[in-house]
Amino acid sequence: MPRPSLSPITAALPETVPFVGPEAIARRSGVELVARIGANESPFGPAPSVVAAMAAAAQESWHYGDPENHDLREAIANHLGIDAANVMPGEGVDAILGMAVRLFAAPGSTVVTSLGGYPTFNYHIAGYGAAMHTVPYIDDREDIDALARAAHETQAAMVYLANPDNPMGSWWDSASIERFIASVPETTMIILDEAYGEFAPQGTLPAFDAQQANLLRMRTFSKAYGLAGARVGYVLGEAANISAFNRIRNHFGISNLAQAAAIAALADSEHLQGSLAAVRRAIDAIGTIARKHGLVALETATNFVAIDCGRDGAYAQAILDGLAQRGIFVRKPAVDGLSRCIRVSAGTDADLAAFDKALGEVLAGLRG
Amino acid sequence: MPRPSLSPITAALPETVPFVGPEAIARRSGVELVARIGANESPFGPAPSVVAAMAAAAQESWHYGDPENHDLREAIANHLGIDAANVMPGEGVDAILGMAVRLFAAPGSTVVTSLGGYPTFNYHIAGYGAAMHTVPYIDDREDIDALARAAHETQAAMVYLANPDNPMGSWWDSASIERFIASVPETTMIILDEAYGEFAPQGTLPAFDAQQANLLRMRTFSKAYGLAGARVGYVLGEAANISAFNRIRNHFGISNLAQAAAIAALADSEHLQGSLAAVRRAIDAIGTIARKHGLVALETATNFVAIDCGRDGAYAQAILDGLAQRGIFVRKPAVDGLSRCIRVSAGTDADLAAFDKALGEVLAGLRG
Repeated sequence: MPRPSLSPITAALPETVPFVGPEAIARRSGVELVARIGANESPFGPAPSVVAAMAAAAQESWHYGDPENHDLREAIANHLGIDAANVMPGEGVDAILGMAVRLFAAPGSTVVTSLGGYPTFNYHIAGYGAAMHTVPYIDDREDIDALARAAHETQAAMVYLANPDNPMGSWWDSASIERFIASVPETTMIILDEAYGEFAPQGTLPAFDAQQANLLRMRTFSKAYGLAGARVGYVLGEAANISAFNRIRNHFGISNLAQAAAIAALADSEHLQGSLAAVRRAIDAIGTIARKHGLVALETATNFVAIDCGRDGAYAQAILDGLAQRGIFVRKPAVDGLSRCIRVSAGTDADLAAFDKALGEVLAGLRG
Repeated sequence: MPRPSLSPITAALPETVPFVGPEAIARRSGVELVARIGANESPFGPAPSVVAAMAAAAQESWHYGDPENHDLREAIANHLGIDAANVMPGEGVDAILGMAVRLFAAPGSTVVTSLGGYPTFNYHIAGYGAAMHTVPYIDDREDIDALARAAHETQAAMVYLANPDNPMGSWWDSASIERFIASVPETTMIILDEAYGEFAPQGTLPAFDAQQANLLRMRTFSKAYGLAGARVGYVLGEAANISAFNRIRNHFGISNLAQAAAIAALADSEHLQGSLAAVRRAIDAIGTIARKHGLVALETATNFVAIDCGRDGAYAQAILDGLAQRGIFVRKPAVDGLSRCIRVSAGTDADLAAFDKALGEVLAGLRG
């Protein structure tokens, strides 16, 4: 039977999901979720003030949100001390990454990223018909020199760097990042994903430069602000690049409730500081648990810890599977070199106690 | 200075917003919004049960929503008595329309729509590099025979039809729609936008046919369910076409709060019936106001009324501008033949009283 054809680019795509959610895992396995510490969410948020703002805004859900996101845009700009023309909010960083690829990576162009880097960015590279060129990690960090070299050698349309990095939690200081930016071709758009920036030590995030015409920086309310479920992120950049998002963005994409939530979140710095402290305590606790079980927690500048399980990827996968059977949702890197690790998000005391107990059982089972 | 280039398709796009929001109008004019009756939202929703569900879900906003939207998908399928494989929820119909164009309209292909039809669909046609071929309305209705003919003549990749129609409120009965579907080439994907379907008389929406491989039907929680601010819509279609959305969709795009809201909305049929009755009363009241002022309200199967102002587009625009100066937000069609009308959404009694008063003043001013 004749039927409509998919466009050539989309016809070549698989029907995959970049991440299988813990809900799907629970539905398929029948195992009830005990600890949700696999998606780098924050169980310490949102702030009570934000929950109250959302509850108040729920009543107003009969009308669309402001398509210009005016108040949110101003609030972000004020928070950062920059101009609103350099800020564009969007319905989560995943959506903004997709728009950035659509804007700056023509079909057939090359996009450079790290082998084992953020899968949703790779999903967008394929989704818009660009070619992905990958660079291996070095010592569990993204290899900024090799990324810049690859951008030159492939005449890349874009290069992606997460700082701090996901999934390894490693990071570069701002001087290294500035050196990286300066070493990338001026015609290559740099995507600097700073989703975990709030967790990083002072001196990790470079100062904002409104003139840098080949740099887009991604930020989110999903991590430190504990609003993963609200779907708000933003991109910072030179005004002409920011304005280019108006060509393609989903103007009504951020719900009015999510706009209200994000504005309230920026206003509650006390809750943010409390969350960051709670995350640091949880990171320390995960390190203690890892050591207790003879594993090695890598240093992290994020709200998660990559735990080196000390053997190969199959062994780490067996640990992950054993944890899943006990309702502990964590994730792990898939590529060689990184796959020896599991990735555990900062959780509540109860989450981490359950993780500790389950990890002990799983390791004993693997030894036995 | 060398800088990254926009991709050829996006470089050719304007930096426009398909719709300027009432918030932006108020910011620019300094006039306070008195009646928000221009975006076909529902001031009669969401249901108190839905607001309660959202308030409860706000607390859970620290975690991502289910990327498979499993429970929502099942709830929609149950509500319609169809299989979940024929349903895909998305972050509003605007986003789903964009994905449909991206999937089925390759760059350079032709997409047929009505001249004066939904601007956001046109935004996506341009946004993905397809060519738009338009067909004029006939007697204030979308011309289904001419649309089908144009789909044949242009070998269109897609053809768009809103039933009931926006901005005119007119509609075709299900037999006519079925005839239209049968007369479109099997290789042309039909987008049947039924955003206003709940408001239409019995016998407007065709029965669902899971085998129809060139038909995607759009539905939304933004209109009858009063959840424009929550950003949830869905598409119905043949399973292989529905599944194709998994290639490109923003899997975490619907917030968990919005998923909870939509599920609660489907469960509260009493509130829906109450809203539909309130909309009918408001539609009648708008007709009465139009007649009182010597204008003609067109028949409608939606939650808005196109009011024929009886002269040309410039005159209708002057009325619109006068209303805006009085804080009454309405919209109007822009193209010749339709532009004699203003489009007024079903509002509360207070909204319509303000509209009535302002309309009298504006018309008196234009006569004076």
